[in-house]
Amino acid sequence: MYDLPDIQACSPDYPINLTRVGATGVKKLVKVERGGDERPIVLISRFEVFVDLPSDRKGANLSRNFEVIDAVLEEEISRPVYEIEELCGKIATGLLARHEYATRAEVKMKSEYIVRRQTPATKITCQEVVDIFAEAVARAGPTSDLKKIVGAEVVGMTACPCAQEIMRGQVISELANLGLDAETARNFAEKIPVATHNQRGRGSISIEVKNQRCISIDRIIRIIEESMSSRVYGLLKRPDEALVVSRAHSNPKFVEDCVRSMAQRVVESFDELLDGAVVTIKQINEESIHQHNAFAERTATMGELRAELSSCM
Amino acid sequence: MYDLPDIQACSPDYPINLTRVGATGVKKLVKVERGGDERPIVLISRFEVFVDLPSDRKGANLSRNFEVIDAVLEEEISRPVYEIEELCGKIATGLLARHEYATRAEVKMKSEYIVRRQTPATKITCQEVVDIFAEAVARAGPTSDLKKIVGAEVVGMTACPCAQEIMRGQVISELANLGLDAETARNFAEKIPVATHNQRGRGSISIEVKNQRCISIDRIIRIIEESMSSRVYGLLKRPDEALVVSRAHSNPKFVEDCVRSMAQRVVESFDELLDGAVVTIKQINEESIHQHNAFAERTATMGELRAELSSCM
Amino acid sequence: MYDLPDIQACSPDYPINLTRVGATGVKKLVKVERGGDERPIVLISRFEVFVDLPSDRKGANLSRNFEVIDAVLEEEISRPVYEIEELCGKIATGLLARHEYATRAEVKMKSEYIVRRQTPATKITCQEVVDIFAEAVARAGPTSDLKKIVGAEVVGMTACPCAQEIMRGQVISELANLGLDAETARNFAEKIPVATHNQRGRGSISIEVKNQRCISIDRIIRIIEESMSSRVYGLLKRPDEALVVSRAHSNPKFVEDCVRSMAQRVVESFDELLDGAVVTIKQINEESIHQHNAFAERTATMGELRAELSSCM
Amino acid sequence: MYDLPDIQACSPDYPINLTRVGATGVKKLVKVERGGDERPIVLISRFEVFVDLPSDRKGANLSRNFEVIDAVLEEEISRPVYEIEELCGKIATGLLARHEYATRAEVKMKSEYIVRRQTPATKITCQEVVDIFAEAVARAGPTSDLKKIVGAEVVGMTACPCAQEIMRGQVISELANLGLDAETARNFAEKIPVATHNQRGRGSISIEVKNQRCISIDRIIRIIEESMSSRVYGLLKRPDEALVVSRAHSNPKFVEDCVRSMAQRVVESFDELLDGAVVTIKQINEESIHQHNAFAERTATMGELRAELSSCM
Repeated sequence: MYDLPDIQACSPDYPINLTRVGATGVKKLVKVERGGDERPIVLISRFEVFVDLPSDRKGANLSRNFEVIDAVLEEEISRPVYEIEELCGKIATGLLARHEYATRAEVKMKSEYIVRRQTPATKITCQEVVDIFAEAVARAGPTSDLKKIVGAEVVGMTACPCAQEIMRGQVISELANLGLDAETARNFAEKIPVATHNQRGRGSISIEVKNQRCISIDRIIRIIEESMSSRVYGLLKRPDEALVVSRAHSNPKFVEDCVRSMAQRVVESFDELLDGAVVTIKQINEESIHQHNAFAERTATMGELRAELSSCM
Repeated sequence: MYDLPDIQACSPDYPINLTRVGATGVKKLVKVERGGDERPIVLISRFEVFVDLPSDRKGANLSRNFEVIDAVLEEEISRPVYEIEELCGKIATGLLARHEYATRAEVKMKSEYIVRRQTPATKITCQEVVDIFAEAVARAGPTSDLKKIVGAEVVGMTACPCAQEIMRGQVISELANLGLDAETARNFAEKIPVATHNQRGRGSISIEVKNQRCISIDRIIRIIEESMSSRVYGLLKRPDEALVVSRAHSNPKFVEDCVRSMAQRVVESFDELLDGAVVTIKQINEESIHQHNAFAERTATMGELRAELSSCM
Repeated sequence: MYDLPDIQACSPDYPINLTRVGATGVKKLVKVERGGDERPIVLISRFEVFVDLPSDRKGANLSRNFEVIDAVLEEEISRPVYEIEELCGKIATGLLARHEYATRAEVKMKSEYIVRRQTPATKITCQEVVDIFAEAVARAGPTSDLKKIVGAEVVGMTACPCAQEIMRGQVISELANLGLDAETARNFAEKIPVATHNQRGRGSISIEVKNQRCISIDRIIRIIEESMSSRVYGLLKRPDEALVVSRAHSNPKFVEDCVRSMAQRVVESFDELLDGAVVTIKQINEESIHQHNAFAERTATMGELRAELSSCM
Repeated sequence: MYDLPDIQACSPDYPINLTRVGATGVKKLVKVERGGDERPIVLISRFEVFVDLPSDRKGANLSRNFEVIDAVLEEEISRPVYEIEELCGKIATGLLARHEYATRAEVKMKSEYIVRRQTPATKITCQEVVDIFAEAVARAGPTSDLKKIVGAEVVGMTACPCAQEIMRGQVISELANLGLDAETARNFAEKIPVATHNQRGRGSISIEVKNQRCISIDRIIRIIEESMSSRVYGLLKRPDEALVVSRAHSNPKFVEDCVRSMAQRVVESFDELLDGAVVTIKQINEESIHQHNAFAERTATMGELRAELSSCM
């Protein structure tokens, strides 16, 4: 093969450092384990990969870069990947090793993931699709300096506590018209499924660790599912649908409540996380009474969340 | 300027006729009238424009094509556009006039559109954004052969009748426990806001006419709004929110019900439409208990809809 | 379990027939065979499923509907699916069997699909992601009345012939300044890679058959890939990149050319298709010199395409 | 009106602080001035608005919140808005004033924006659509502590320098075959438009200031346009298209080059920006030879960029 010019190694017109150079929208097959006795599935994941670039180098050798990424992915795909943030960590470390001019490598991935659930009343198995994501940042120097992020976004159902309380007031008024005393009326109105607006909500949790072992993505998914008014299901027979509506209406939640429930469950479930781990928790409700969405978010270290909850635990 | 080659006028490698040649994703400013004493607003609309191409011509002169489109749009934008399907009709006619080799020209546009509404209880004015669209197809020959389509998609709220009826059964059981007789219990349970799952729904209507005058897009929008369980609002104070939830729960609707309500209202409101006009009506509910959506659709001529409804009107 | 009301079986408020009632955005795992000695992969596909609904029935029993769909999919997923339009056909037939009130069932699916390719110069294996889709429509009556559609959309590269011819004129002028004679200059300018604008293009082919055996989706993908100026690759080393740029520039194509090339190859490759099969061929170029896209399309029967091409084959 | 319960003011189940509570996907009409003698246009912008929430309050009164946002927007819309980050700043300040429990308010907006440009050779006026965005964060305390961000994303064209250099080598070889000497061949190959892959690129710049006056969004847009290989145009006649292709090929740029050019121009053009201003510059190329995109980014203070460029200015 004839000798091809290496334009990337030239000097740039302006000696500016670059924070990230790389590729986005890179789709690759990734084998995902699903635990227990279920067979692994191979999903198409979407990657972003970056390295930094010093001010004296024109380009990051993107063409060679892609070859490197592919090789690392290929090698990882040939064995079961138990933790997607570990996969990102290995790619980031590999990129750093092969780009002698880089001091930092960053890898992000997103994928759909299948979980099996049982319908609440009829106990039929159905599949739910959740979004999972992971990131890793490797820095030149001690190999243990590897930041890893893992998380998930899950769709569920939320019912508004405020509108329900107003509706409940109307029910109590109607009961008074029937001649019931105030306490009986209130008790009755607490027991029956009183209307409120409800909607799809999307909860998400991401957890960032440094030099620590992995987080179970299945536990993250469970926490998000349990923190809304009800789960949603791909299949609901009539008794299931009744149970879902009942549960959601006896467990109404604002976006704020969902985020706080997730925070409480993260603290409860992830005892092993160091105080320095950073947790980002979000809830978006696609309000059925508006075109816009309600939103709440908390970003904090595990240490901060533990301190805030210490008064009530 | 030197003489540039006209590759488009050459013969193609294979003598295949083309149904559509043109451009998509063309964004242009369009002035939209809002009726009454409101000032017109200028919105960015997204266009698609096509002509057909005979088998003996390599290309459709896209570069010249864009110039033509621009000129027609520019001219129309300088005066108020009362009906967006008229705008599409003029562009289609213009394209046909300027492409001597074409026998058919097609124009599609989509835009967002602002309507002003009042909150239901507190009567505060708020803006709602709806999607509007129009199309026109002009054919070479008699100028009157111009097909025009106009329509809108509007977000509203739907509450499920089936889940509500099951919940109502539970309320009646509870009332029996309080010692109420069956008829009083049923009457009470019909009057109070009993829970059900509810969600954002998106209704749409498109109407296709030939050689007929224009359709009011504002009437189309009103019909869609009135055919779901309740409208949605950009702003709801607490009494408004109570009223919206009450209304939606005393007017529960399946996707099928929404489509049939729209069909009935179209027949009722558009007396002037000829029997040959084609109506497409859709409803998509973003089910709060599922990740997937419920969907219903009817496509029919005005004549067919009138015949089906004649038994009940 | 107590007896739950069947609201769906009631009469609707307005006796309007519905063309389609069902669900959209239904995500399911589908096992896809990849032929040869490659192992099957399991992909998340997105489904739409509909039946029609007579005017005397309020609802389509969506909840039961989903159960049916799931069962059919589950059964199909347990064995290799060689042809995705067959899968859609089986679901459509199954839906019709289980909805006694329906006369028509329609199923659509979309999925990503992995093909393996070799880089053109260095012969490294890399993965490409293409979009595949299928549909089926079953009608009550003779079981053989099953319409099936299968197709794919593939990303490739297109280079503009018109701009290249203008640039070539400039090169010839420059050569004249060097003292070369006209013929030598023209010959030289035909041989070297003269600049033009080039861009990502997306070609798609869908083929609709009735009562006929299946179409190979891999052949469809090959035809789309070969009908643009060049393929694109997930990985290109420097000699590969040179070869891709060379090939694209010695094979410039308008959107119109891409559609006609696909049409010619479909006629050539699918000898077994009956004249009544309907073919839809599209090309969208994401023009590098514009924000909008260039578009061309042909919809025709195989019989029509064969007739048009008979003069040149 | 009867007395409605204030559920939001209750204590939450878990005393967790929330970083952001608010709404996303809020669409509003915003009047945008276009400078000079052009008339202002009214565009639909998309907003996100948040306040923080202390651990002792269940909800952020979203319903009241929306009312507040609307009022502020309404008031601003009634007069010309010269700078969109000023608009965000006023909304953020307004939110903070009305949410007595909040210590921080954040507002983000995105909009499309129209700029008029002339085609390069034929000097026809055409419109280009660019994306603009702004943010503001207000904190309780001294009113001057207001962080503001403004920026834009613009589509242009980029041509790859590396592939072009390889192609140029091939041209030089061919010239040698014609008997030209090495220097003449190299000179000739530098002068003619040699092929390379080129594509749509998207450049973006955002600038964050504190307690400083506003940034001209038009200057930001100009800088992005000038930092790619060529601008793109909504309309190009044949001589314009030739000029665009010529210019792009005599000005090839990697993603890295585009970011560095933007950085250099920001330093050159925004003399008035304090050293603490934070600049984020990105370039994404939708590679015509790949399905994935090339990406480069720099985030730095103006002080850092000035220091890096001091050696070469």
